[in-house]
Amino acid sequence: MTLTKNEIKFIKSLRIKKYRDNHQLFIVEGEKLVNELMSQSTYKIDTVFHTQEYGIPETDLRFNSILISDKELAQISTLKSPNKVVATVKITAKFELNLQESDLVLLLDNVKDPGNLGTIIRTAEWYGIKNIIASEQTVDVFNSKTIQASMGAFYHVNFSYCHLESIITELKENDFVLSGASLSGVNVYKTEFETKTALVMGSESHGISPSIMKLLDRELLIPKVGVSESLNVGIATGIFLSEYYRQHMQFSKK
Amino acid sequence: MTLTKNEIKFIKSLRIKKYRDNHQLFIVEGEKLVNELMSQSTYKIDTVFHTQEYGIPETDLRFNSILISDKELAQISTLKSPNKVVATVKITAKFELNLQESDLVLLLDNVKDPGNLGTIIRTAEWYGIKNIIASEQTVDVFNSKTIQASMGAFYHVNFSYCHLESIITELKENDFVLSGASLSGVNVYKTEFETKTALVMGSESHGISPSIMKLLDRELLIPKVGVSESLNVGIATGIFLSEYYRQHMQFSKK
Repeated sequence: MTLTKNEIKFIKSLRIKKYRDNHQLFIVEGEKLVNELMSQSTYKIDTVFHTQEYGIPETDLRFNSILISDKELAQISTLKSPNKVVATVKITAKFELNLQESDLVLLLDNVKDPGNLGTIIRTAEWYGIKNIIASEQTVDVFNSKTIQASMGAFYHVNFSYCHLESIITELKENDFVLSGASLSGVNVYKTEFETKTALVMGSESHGISPSIMKLLDRELLIPKVGVSESLNVGIATGIFLSEYYRQHMQFSKK
Repeated sequence: MTLTKNEIKFIKSLRIKKYRDNHQLFIVEGEKLVNELMSQSTYKIDTVFHTQEYGIPETDLRFNSILISDKELAQISTLKSPNKVVATVKITAKFELNLQESDLVLLLDNVKDPGNLGTIIRTAEWYGIKNIIASEQTVDVFNSKTIQASMGAFYHVNFSYCHLESIITELKENDFVLSGASLSGVNVYKTEFETKTALVMGSESHGISPSIMKLLDRELLIPKVGVSESLNVGIATGIFLSEYYRQHMQFSKK
């Protein structure tokens, strides 16, 4: 065994927000995500814990690299099927809201499920969104489940926690039109999105909070045919983003 | 304690497909889902295990009802936050593929993640899809995570496992056009869906299998702006369904 009990305890503690905040570290794991972290992101790795199979070049001095057994990997991994490597990574705030570069901004009002948040980031990045702003009550973006569900998309967006009301004031001053998801909204398929749009998505259980709802310029609904009460917030986000891009983007002619 | 060790073991065994198949029972839990199960579905409940707080009328004789403690609930629940009630429910095949009543059919080719499957069912039901047909390698629809993620939508669709190639032959004989998700497909936003469409979605890791891909009339792509490699299969399904319905449905004028 390479790792001491205390080291294992330390790594496992990073599953909990309090300890991530204390140590300013979060976890990324699995061969693909860790490789992309090294090659495509500006995040700084603290330590890479890897099995023989992962095979890191010994000459890489940018971070600590520790060879562990499969058994140790299973102990520190958050995955059902651990995959060769777990990295501890430095939390860095990399937020710059550059409204000149960005026509569509995504605001998240208290999204609570870490998997949903990760999927939303993955989808937003697919459509080229640069800025995602979450209310302070939104789940922690450095939660392992969020990182895993984002599938590396996380590395390519500016994600920040803000007081949404203040950001909304700033967005309005910059001529953004605020649209938000609501079950009492107008049919999204009969709506033209303004080019400068800020899309607000609410929480899984309660939707957009009343104080934010008041600030919207438009409430939007995805019309339903069946009997279900609601859509998953990730799915609803995907459908709204799809509609925006269908209307606004010059896609390749393919 | 009301439940014996063996009873607890039995209920927990239903988390595993082999035991669900053996006993022809699956689990539905949480107040909302169990209430909807009783009021809106044709599934037959075997036993309802509930805490005092859930409060079932004693006169309900359609199924066994057993009062348990919060501690016992926590033992048999699959949820992080157990919610008042766990029901064991009889597995019934309720598949009838009625192509006369159905313009859009959803085919799933080896979707592997139970949460994704549940979300897909929820989304499909939202858009009024009646028939979902899955390959035999698709994850078990009676998996607890699938049931929970479907949020009761599961009660309202015909879901079946079939040899996809055979179903596709039948669909083609009935003038359905087969569209499938593929990273080498044509831009979905520049495509008109035929009214009679069968949409095929592939697995999370491998997409649509080659033997099914050959049978498609059209490969479709959701064009990307960012750098992510792929979308979550649930999100992609939602976007395709949204596009179909935007083109074809007469929504209310609201």
